[in-house]
Order: sequence, then structure tokens, then C-alpha cells
Amino acid sequence: MTTLLRATWTRLLTNMRDPQIRRTVAYYMGGKLLGLGLLLSIMYWVIPTAVHAATGAATPTPEINAVNTVWTLVAAFLVFCMQVGFVMLEAGFARSRESVNILVEGIADTCICGILFWAWGFAFMFEPGNGFIGTQGFFLSGLPATYMGTGIPLLAFWVFQFAFADTASTITSGAMIGRCGFWGDILYSIGVTGFIYPIIGHWTWGPDGWLAMMNFKDFAGSTVVHSIGGAISLAGALALGPRLGRIFKRDGGGPPPAHDLILGAVGGLILWFGWYGFNPGSTLSALDTIGIGRVSFNTTLAACSAGLAALFYSYFRSKNKTWDLGLTVNGFLGGLVAITCPCYWVDPVGAFFIGIVAAFVVVLGLDLLEYLRIDDPIGAVPVHLFAGIWGTLSLGLFASGAYGAPTPTGADTSAVIKGLLYGGGVGQLGTQFIGSAVTVVATLAISLVLMYGLKYVGVLRVSKAGELEGLDLHEHGAVAYPEYALMGVVPSLTGHDDTTVAATPVMVED
Amino acid sequence: MTTLLRATWTRLLTNMRDPQIRRTVAYYMGGKLLGLGLLLSIMYWVIPTAVHAATGAATPTPEINAVNTVWTLVAAFLVFCMQVGFVMLEAGFARSRESVNILVEGIADTCICGILFWAWGFAFMFEPGNGFIGTQGFFLSGLPATYMGTGIPLLAFWVFQFAFADTASTITSGAMIGRCGFWGDILYSIGVTGFIYPIIGHWTWGPDGWLAMMNFKDFAGSTVVHSIGGAISLAGALALGPRLGRIFKRDGGGPPPAHDLILGAVGGLILWFGWYGFNPGSTLSALDTIGIGRVSFNTTLAACSAGLAALFYSYFRSKNKTWDLGLTVNGFLGGLVAITCPCYWVDPVGAFFIGIVAAFVVVLGLDLLEYLRIDDPIGAVPVHLFAGIWGTLSLGLFASGAYGAPTPTGADTSAVIKGLLYGGGVGQLGTQFIGSAVTVVATLAISLVLMYGLKYVGVLRVSKAGELEGLDLHEHGAVAYPEYALMGVVPSLTGHDDTTVAATPVMVED
Amino acid sequence: MTTLLRATWTRLLTNMRDPQIRRTVAYYMGGKLLGLGLLLSIMYWVIPTAVHAATGAATPTPEINAVNTVWTLVAAFLVFCMQVGFVMLEAGFARSRESVNILVEGIADTCICGILFWAWGFAFMFEPGNGFIGTQGFFLSGLPATYMGTGIPLLAFWVFQFAFADTASTITSGAMIGRCGFWGDILYSIGVTGFIYPIIGHWTWGPDGWLAMMNFKDFAGSTVVHSIGGAISLAGALALGPRLGRIFKRDGGGPPPAHDLILGAVGGLILWFGWYGFNPGSTLSALDTIGIGRVSFNTTLAACSAGLAALFYSYFRSKNKTWDLGLTVNGFLGGLVAITCPCYWVDPVGAFFIGIVAAFVVVLGLDLLEYLRIDDPIGAVPVHLFAGIWGTLSLGLFASGAYGAPTPTGADTSAVIKGLLYGGGVGQLGTQFIGSAVTVVATLAISLVLMYGLKYVGVLRVSKAGELEGLDLHEHGAVAYPEYALMGVVPSLTGHDDTTVAATPVMVED
Repeated sequence: MTTLLRATWTRLLTNMRDPQIRRTVAYYMGGKLLGLGLLLSIMYWVIPTAVHAATGAATPTPEINAVNTVWTLVAAFLVFCMQVGFVMLEAGFARSRESVNILVEGIADTCICGILFWAWGFAFMFEPGNGFIGTQGFFLSGLPATYMGTGIPLLAFWVFQFAFADTASTITSGAMIGRCGFWGDILYSIGVTGFIYPIIGHWTWGPDGWLAMMNFKDFAGSTVVHSIGGAISLAGALALGPRLGRIFKRDGGGPPPAHDLILGAVGGLILWFGWYGFNPGSTLSALDTIGIGRVSFNTTLAACSAGLAALFYSYFRSKNKTWDLGLTVNGFLGGLVAITCPCYWVDPVGAFFIGIVAAFVVVLGLDLLEYLRIDDPIGAVPVHLFAGIWGTLSLGLFASGAYGAPTPTGADTSAVIKGLLYGGGVGQLGTQFIGSAVTVVATLAISLVLMYGLKYVGVLRVSKAGELEGLDLHEHGAVAYPEYALMGVVPSLTGHDDTTVAATPVMVED
Repeated sequence: MTTLLRATWTRLLTNMRDPQIRRTVAYYMGGKLLGLGLLLSIMYWVIPTAVHAATGAATPTPEINAVNTVWTLVAAFLVFCMQVGFVMLEAGFARSRESVNILVEGIADTCICGILFWAWGFAFMFEPGNGFIGTQGFFLSGLPATYMGTGIPLLAFWVFQFAFADTASTITSGAMIGRCGFWGDILYSIGVTGFIYPIIGHWTWGPDGWLAMMNFKDFAGSTVVHSIGGAISLAGALALGPRLGRIFKRDGGGPPPAHDLILGAVGGLILWFGWYGFNPGSTLSALDTIGIGRVSFNTTLAACSAGLAALFYSYFRSKNKTWDLGLTVNGFLGGLVAITCPCYWVDPVGAFFIGIVAAFVVVLGLDLLEYLRIDDPIGAVPVHLFAGIWGTLSLGLFASGAYGAPTPTGADTSAVIKGLLYGGGVGQLGTQFIGSAVTVVATLAISLVLMYGLKYVGVLRVSKAGELEGLDLHEHGAVAYPEYALMGVVPSLTGHDDTTVAATPVMVED
Repeated sequence: MTTLLRATWTRLLTNMRDPQIRRTVAYYMGGKLLGLGLLLSIMYWVIPTAVHAATGAATPTPEINAVNTVWTLVAAFLVFCMQVGFVMLEAGFARSRESVNILVEGIADTCICGILFWAWGFAFMFEPGNGFIGTQGFFLSGLPATYMGTGIPLLAFWVFQFAFADTASTITSGAMIGRCGFWGDILYSIGVTGFIYPIIGHWTWGPDGWLAMMNFKDFAGSTVVHSIGGAISLAGALALGPRLGRIFKRDGGGPPPAHDLILGAVGGLILWFGWYGFNPGSTLSALDTIGIGRVSFNTTLAACSAGLAALFYSYFRSKNKTWDLGLTVNGFLGGLVAITCPCYWVDPVGAFFIGIVAAFVVVLGLDLLEYLRIDDPIGAVPVHLFAGIWGTLSLGLFASGAYGAPTPTGADTSAVIKGLLYGGGVGQLGTQFIGSAVTVVATLAISLVLMYGLKYVGVLRVSKAGELEGLDLHEHGAVAYPEYALMGVVPSLTGHDDTTVAATPVMVED
């Protein structure tokens, strides 16, 4: 049995290096997974589910609506601020030659997201239709002034959700840094924020989503935002292949160093700051004071325990006993991603351990990608996909059984969630597994089709010459730092030849 | 007729290059425009205007005042955060040799603004007096504890308005980068935040401002903040002339490249973030939940449509089909500036088109300045003055006729605004034109006098030697990045000689 | 008398250069000061003090609790954002070779603080026990859902106070930049956020703290956060000694230049932004609208007057009449630190002068440290310790006698504070002096023991070889900017030999 497993694994890895086989496998798996996803969907669609009653204890007053709206909008602005963090993190952890591209991409996907989420994304995701997709409210027309009995104005709720959609879109770009052409960027961004994110997101967050109906819970989006974003990013990295000259650890190389560690790490801290909008704001209710306090606390504690765990784990396993900045940042980000799903329902001890495990998931996940020769320049897949899966499952383990759901007038504890470790059995854990698996599998399947489609159309990856020149010069006619003298050589083409093109610094005469 | 126009235009351009003529024209126009402004002012001052009745539906309770104050203060803090964005944008888009100067200038004008806005700026702008200037409340003494029936504490409202005044002051510095001496900086900052901004701003935002009385509307300051700031900046650029060695496109050159595109673009995104305080906060009311939702939404959509339009427009007109980061950032900033005036009164479709047009205004405005040989290193004039004018006018086109004004207890729809495209006739458009024209003309006139005055006193522009050395070394005895090896040469003196001073990197020994 | 003083001073300075004597003095003073602190403590402990009655005018409603909680949490998030500012400020003002270390340190102390403040820090500081330490609520267990009748959820209050504790911890690192080993960083961080800050902080902010009982007032922490952080930092700098090659001004040298002034100054502005959470949020009450307005205003004005004073003072005393960016930033930061204690109780004129004096305290404090040959790379001691002491004392001078304390339902003016200059006598000034002195002395004593303890264990300072290599390479196996060509030489060893190791740029091959 062990021998068989090992042989299979070896063959799998060998095959991973053959682009022909990779393409075939991707298509095959895409099809299979899509089928499986549909089957599961239908299965659970026909199973009757009880929608737990909404509590309307008190009718919200104008004052209550005002404080809830302020809370939601301020949170939305903080989530928007995560764009600042993302572009700094990605640009800093990338090479300087591709950093302008990251900025243009980040801004372009924000703008595309705004237009599409207005035109149809919001309708697909948050308006009623069926379990799979919303079918009304295109261009937000014909909708009531407040969203679904929350008392939050529709347009304020839209801004909050736009910032979330934008996050998913930006996460996607992470593993595709450095070799994706800009038309490819634009087209997959349209796919992400126009279709994949809102449609699959509807299953969990739509008012009649089929995963929601079966009691799948994802408070602020470990699955809906992070796993979806991370899975699309993985599909992109698979379709693109590694950057030219990227030699993996098992072949004697390693990832190129971050060109500006300070920029990247500051970006990480800004993401942490923005997360205080992401998680606590997802209550949509400031009247649930105890709830927003708990969510803020759990978010903090999981980030702290994950950051420390990553710092110490990477220290003890390092050859020269060094304290790794990049892994520490990705560690606390993994903790933040993981706590995003369960943050409303767990107690401090739960948050602490969810963070610890997330750090290991991220660090080992980075190793796995490196081993599989998948080039993810900033670790988007481990941080967002892997830690997102862990966080989604963790609810089934750590939900303390004391908390239900926020409402505009306070906490509703009529239908609490209890995890395995708190005596709640495996019910919620099973549901979380199904929700996470279905979402990840469906996202991977669809986005592999999207990414390979773009690849065969010829817009996904830039030419070799363009990539060697650097995406910034090639796609944007600019370099990030024209006045600084740079060192370093352009990478040679892996395995094909060993031409080393010397970097020619761009002389600036103004 | 066409021949005459062309001849006039050619002569105008030739004259623009003669400093003697430029000076004369500036004085002449300054005088004329000042006269015209005064005439218009008096004209409208004597025309009786109906002040539409304030609605006091419900007496604000302590709870209502609290949530309104929290909203206003949080918004104020976000607006303050725009200072972070501005200095990053300006420093990043400038050359490294003048970036320290930008930071000192940004901090100094913030500090000057704080003192002067306390001493008399707030009194000039927001306290009663006559249509032209406020005449009470110097050092805020003798004023009631809350501002004008808003329920917002006077000092909280002051912090909000201080952040706005500071924005106007920082905008001013944009087109004057790289050659303005620091005593000049200080003196014009005093002129801007102590006199020009608060006095001209009083006309629109003062409780008895004469433009306000004729129903001129500027919700969050496309005119009051951005056009005023941009117009002063233009006056500064005219008085200063271009940086040494700045060769314009029609002479075979082009603007020097941004020394740190990442820094500049991140600054742009932080400005977007801060704009969520600027526009939504201008309701001063969280009880008008629908209003703050609409303003937040419109702000987002206009930024997105403008960013996309600038991205694609600059792509399609570029020679090598490149996606321009700088233009995209200036594009979405133009969209934000434009939506700032009408954001409360337009519907999504309006916001969308206001953004699209703003992008073209900015990109073509940059061309115009380049053609007129006006050196605006970061595009402050197109973004703030031109897009500000467009935004102010756009209200007269796109106001949907459904919205009136926010009050402490909710929206007041007793006096709605309806634009030309929504069947409201040309009335509001005309008023907007007058308000914008009067403000811009008066600002230009006064600030040309200020800037040329400083020039003749000899404090506006640094010496040639100082400019060649770089403002940072010359005015601040420091360089931004003493450890980095820089490339590039100091620009030769345009037209006078062609000495090229080699850059001598500053060796650091600690 | 004068001769005697001069001789003593000369001997003191000579002795300062002898490490053996320095060590002895430090221990001796540590012991003495600890004794003095305990004596003072006991003295005041037995003096009966009147606890002024809490006003419970209105029972807070859910709406009131909601708006107070939103206010407190948003403030907490802004305070967290100060971490972003701190790491940028510290990294920018340091040399590039130690900037990665600053980032790892900043993140690590945040994470450590989160865990320890949950485990016991919060219990030590904010829960009842005796005048010296809190003795219940470890791991927050067994505590009520809201904090002490504020209506703020315990966990929300925790997040707010965690962000404060984290600030103290990060301040500590400032004067220890560039030569502290990472195990030393971790261990002293545990000491700071696990013991020194929460225990000494309890004296002032604990519900039964002995300094609080004698009416010592520190609204948002000039003493509790800034003086404690600054004093620990000073102890660290004394224990560490200067960086290798650091030659002081009186020996013909000067501090090494900031490696990225833009990064540092932007960090300073972000700190100002975050301070709007720090001070106004410390009301814990949005219902006290007038109070939060006044605090926001005073914070702004003191920062502005301090920034301007530092700018002009440093200009007029500079040899070449240059405007110093670093001093201006440290100037406004000093103003912010100083106003932090009195911000609730002073009027605008008070805030203005508190800022002015703070600027001089900071600039002259930097001179003093340079004269005493204490190496504080970013000026943490003058900004946080010296300006913190000034701010604490200033309350005794400038408290206007009109304001008491915020409560959940509004301002309580039953027990106002009046300073010397407003006719209140020297009572409050004396109390402020005692509170500041006791806190500083106790902190210095304990932290000298901690730092010298770590030094003798051998984990405080890295090896000479490691320091010459740069902390980033030595402790983290990374450089901040591997692609940039750097200039500059590694400093020679002071006084021992004059070997100058040429910087060998790290070539990057990816």
C-alpha cells in the first residue's frame, strides 16, 4: 500500500513537469470536479432544510439604523484600505521589474470590479433567484432602499460588498505575478468579479444560496473570499507555469528575493489593519456590541498566535537560525484568513489554536507548492486557499456553542453553532467540509477552464522576450525606480539555454 | 475667422515663452479678473435670493448628536489621512532630489493651516459676517459649543474643516514642485490657508456666502477645495516657470519620469481611501443613512469608471500600446475630484458618466499644459482644477431631482435639485457655471498677485545653482536616500548652455 | 558652587564612557530608585484619598452602548494603525542594513503583546487587586461581558488596550535599533508587555491604582504609554551602548543619516493619523460629544504648533539655514506625545503652548543624548520620555478648570481639574510631578535590571561581526533591498581600530 502510494506520487510529480500532461490533467480534473460539484449541489438541493427563523425582537429605529450604517460604512472603508496593503505586499515581495504591473493590475481590477459589481455582480450574489444565482437587481435597479431587513441602505451595503469582491479579485493576482500579460489580467479580472466570485459566492451568502440553506457558515469569507480568490490564483499559476528562470528548491534553487521587504511587510500590517473592517464589519450590526467585540478580539488573537508560530517555526527549522520576515508576515496573514470564517462563533482559546495551526498550514503549504514546482511569488495559495480551507473547517471544531447570529438590534442566540471539540458532534464539521470542498472544487474547475482558455487564445502569458525585459517595461513602458542603480541579472531561460542577459540600467536624462 | 483664431493662438503661444510678456499678461488679467469677480459679486449680492427653509423635523437627541459626531470625526480622520496619500503621490511622482522638500512642505503647510485656521481661517470661512467674509469667532472665541444647529461640537466640526483646508493647501504645492524655495512655500501657504481658501470658500460654504445664497451647490468641494487649490497651483506654476532642463513634448522632450512609481501609486490609493471621509462625511449626518450610502456609492463608481477610462484611453493612444500607471492614477483621482461636488444629488448612471468624462478631462488637460509649456510635475492642475470645474458643472447636468439636503435627523427633500438631463432645465447648470467661474477667476487673480509678488520679492524660486543641486540638498541639507546609488544626470540649463553636471552620489560614512 | 557643579559634570561624563562604571552606576541607581519608588508608593498608599463619585445620570441604553462601542473600536483600529507608522518611521530613520530587523521586531512584539495581554497583562493592568497590581481575570476568564460599567464589551475594551500596550512595546525598540540581538528583542518584549507596562500602568489606569487614587491624571497616556515606553528604551540604549562606529557630535561625528527619509516621514504622518484614535478614543464615550471634539481639536493644535516650532527652531539654529525634515517630524510627534495626557482638560491656548514647549523639549533632548553619548537612532527617548514628562506636568499648568471626566452618557463636570496658570494652585502640578516621577523612576529601575540582566546572559547585543555585517543579514538572513546598488562603508570600530570594511553589495541571481 505504501509502495503504491509512493509510486503514484512519484509519477504524479514527474507528470507535473510535462506541460502536455498537465494540460490534460487540468482539463480532465476540471470536468470531473465540475461534475462532482454539480452532483453534490443537486443532492443537497433536494434535501429539505430548515431555515431558522429570523428574530425581529425590536423594530430598528432611525438611530439604530444610523449607528449600524456608520459601522458598516467605516468597515467598508477599512476593507477598501486593504487594497493599499495588497499592492504593497505584492509589489514588495515581487521583483522590482514587475512591481509597476502589480500596481496597474491592482487598480484596474478595483475599477473593473466596481463597474461589474454594479452592473450584475451584486445581483448575481446578493439578490434572490435560486440556490445557484441571483436573478434580479441588475444595475441595482428596482431594489428597495435598504438591504433585506438589515436597515442598512442598499448602496452602503453595496460599497461594503464591493470592497470584499475587490479583495477576492486582488488575491487572485498574487500567484500570477511576473508573467501574466495585461490583456490576460483584464480578462480574468472580468471573469473573477463578474462571474466566478459572485455566482459561487451566492451559494453561501445569497439570500437563497444552496450552501447557506444547508447551514454552511462562513462569517466573513474564509471560503467565499479567500478560498475562492486563492483557488483562482492556483488555477492561474498552473495555467501560466513558473516564471522564466525560476528554479525550485529541489532543483537547487529557490524563490527570488523580495525586492523591497519593507514595502511588503508594511503592506502586510496594513492588511491586518484593514481586516478590522473585514471581520467585525461583517456583523452589519453595531447593536450586537458583544458580537463585534468578540470578533475584533478573535481576529487579533488569531493573527498574533499565527504570527508567533510562523516566526518560531521558521526560526527553528532554518539552517542558520534566522528569523524570517516574509514567513512571519505570511504567517499572521494565514491566521487572519483562517479566523475570518469562525470569528463570530469561537472563544479566545479557539482563536488561539486556529491561528497556531494556520501558521503551519501556510509554511508547509509554501513547501508543498515549491515541491510541486508551482510558482506562487508571494504565497497567495497557501495564505488564502489553504488557510481559508483550514479556517472554514475549524468552525466545525471550535464553535463554542454560545453564539448564533447578529441582527440589527443585537445578537440572536436562538440557533447557536457548536463544534466537535465542544461536544457538538461532527454535524457542523461535515457541513463545513462540504461547503469548503464544493466551493474550492467548483472554483478550481471553472477557473482552470477560464485560465487555460485565455492561454490558448494567447493572452495569458507574455512573450519570453517581454518577460525577460520585465513586465513593467514590456507592458507599461516604465520602470518603478528609474533613478536607482540596480544590481542583478535577468534570469536565464530554464533548461533551454543559459544565456544570461546583463541588466542594463535605464539611464535617466530629464 | 478660423485664420484669425489660429493667428491669435500662435501669437499667444509665442508670447507665453517671453517672460516679460507673461508677467505683464498675468498682472493685467489678474486685475481684470479681480474686477470682473467683484462686479459679478456685487451684482448677485443685490439680487434678492430665497433662503430655503431649514427642516427641523425632529429635535436631535444626545444619541443622534453622538452618532453624527462620531461619523463626522471619523470622516475628519480619514480626510487627514489624505495628507499621507498626497505626500506619497507627490514625492513618488517627482524626482528623488526634490522629494524631501515635498515632505517638509506637506508637513509645514499642515501645521501652518492648523494655526491659521484656528486663529482666523475658520472665522473667515464658516462664521457669519457678510456674503464675502465671516467676521466673528477669531480664535474660536465666543462661539457656541455646537456648530449652527448641526448638533456637531464646534471643535469637531473645526477638525473636519481643518482637514479640508489642509487638503486645499497641499493641492497647491503640486504644480510648484522642484523649484520653489522654502520661504516661498511658507509664505504662499499662509496666503492659501489664511486668506484665499477661507475667504473665497466663504462665498459657497459660509452661512451667508453670496454664492450659497444664489443656490450654487458644491457638496464636498469640487470647487471650494479642488478648484481653488488647483487654480492657486496653476498661478504658482505660471509664476515659477518650468524646472530647469524641463523640455516639453513639442520641443522633443517630455516630463521626467516618476522616481518611485510604487510610492506614487500607493499614495493615490490612500487618497481614494481618504476620499471616503471627504465625500460621505460631508453630510455631517449619519441619520441620513440613505444619503451617506448614496454618496459612498457614487464616489466609488465615479472613481472606477474614471480609472478604467483613463487606463484604456491612454492605452489606445500610446505608441507602443502600454498601460500607463501614472495616467490611470490621475484618472481615478480626476473621477474622485469630479464626483465631489455632485455626489449627493446624482444617481449611479450619472456618477458613471461623470467619472468617464473626468478621465478625458484629466488626460487631455495634461496634454494642454504640456502644449502650453506649463510645468506641472504631478498633474495637479488637470486633476484638481479642470476635473473640479467639470464636476461642478456636471451637477447641473446629472442632478436627478430626487434629493435635497442632509439634516441632523435625516434627509430633507423639500428643495430638490434637478439637472438639465433630468428635465430640470438650465437653471442649476447656469448657477453652477457662475459659481465655478467666479471662484476660479477670483482665485486665479488673487493668487497670481500673491505668487508674482513673492517672485519679485525674490523668495519664490531658488537659485539656479540650488535647483541644479536639487531642492533637498539645497533647502534641507539632506537627500532622501543617502545609501542608494543613483543614476542619471542633473539637467542642463534649457536654452542657455548645455553644461551637464554629472550626478555625484553622496558617499555615506557613518 | 559653580566650579563644583562643573567638575561633577565633567567627571560624570568621563565616567559615562567607562563601561564598568556605567554598569555599576546603573545598578546602584536602579536599586536606589526602586527603593525610592517603593517608599513614595507606600507613603501615598496610606494617605487617605477621596474617590470622586461616579455619575450615573442616565442608564446607558443599547443604542448608547452601540455608539460608544463603535467609537471605541474604530479608535482601537486607528491605534493599531500606529504600528504601521512606527515601523515605517523607525525603518526609514535607521540604516538600510537594520531595517528588516525593525519590521520583524515590530511584528513580533505585536504578536507577543497580543498573547501576553490576553494571558495576564490585561488582568495585571485593568482588573482590581490592590494599588500595585490587578489580581483577577487571567485569560480574561470569569469577567463580566462589559468593562466596569462603561457599557463597552470587555473584548472590545481589550482590543483598544492591546493596541495601547503594543504601542508602548514598539516605542521601546526605538533607541535600541541596530545592535540588539533578536533573542534579546523577544525577551525584553516579554518583559515590557507582560510585566513592566501592565503593572506600572495599573498604578494610574487600574480601577484601584494607587496613583489614580491620589488623583494623578493621565488621559491617554503621556506617562503610562509614552514615558514608560521611552524610559525602557533609554534603559535599553544605556545597557547596549552605542552602535559600532557611532561617533558623537562632540567627538566630531554625528548620527548616520536616515536611509529613507520619505519612508520615515510618511510613517510620522501615519502616526499622527493613528493618534486620532489614541486620544479621542480614550473617552470610551461618544455621548460626550463636546469632549471628543475638544480632544480631537487639542490633539491637532498641539501637533501643529510643535511641528512649526521644531521646523523654525531647527532652521534658525542650523549652520546653513536648512529646514530639517527629521526634526520637524520628531517635533510634531513630541507635541502629540505631550498633549496626550492633558488633551481632555485644556483649552486651545493651552494646547498651543504645550505643543510649542514640546518641540523645544524634543530638539534639546536630542542634543542632550548626543552630548551624553547615548545612541538613540530615531530619538525615541526625547520624543516619548522627555515630551511625555512635559505633557504630564503641563496638565498641572494648563488645565482650564472647566472639564471633569467622560462618562458613557456624557461629560461629568462634578470634579473638574484646574491648573496653576488658571488659578488652580500647585496641587495638581504636584500630583502630576509625583505621578510622572514615580512612574519614570520605577520603570527605569526595573528596566535597567531587565536590560543589564539580558546583557549579562549575553543575548542583548549581537557580536561585533554580526553588527558590522548588519542586523538584517546576521539575524534574518536577508537584506531589505537586494536589487538596489548601495553606497557607503561599514563603520569602523570606534577607538579600537580603523579598519574600514568596504560594503560588498549582494549580487542577486534569481
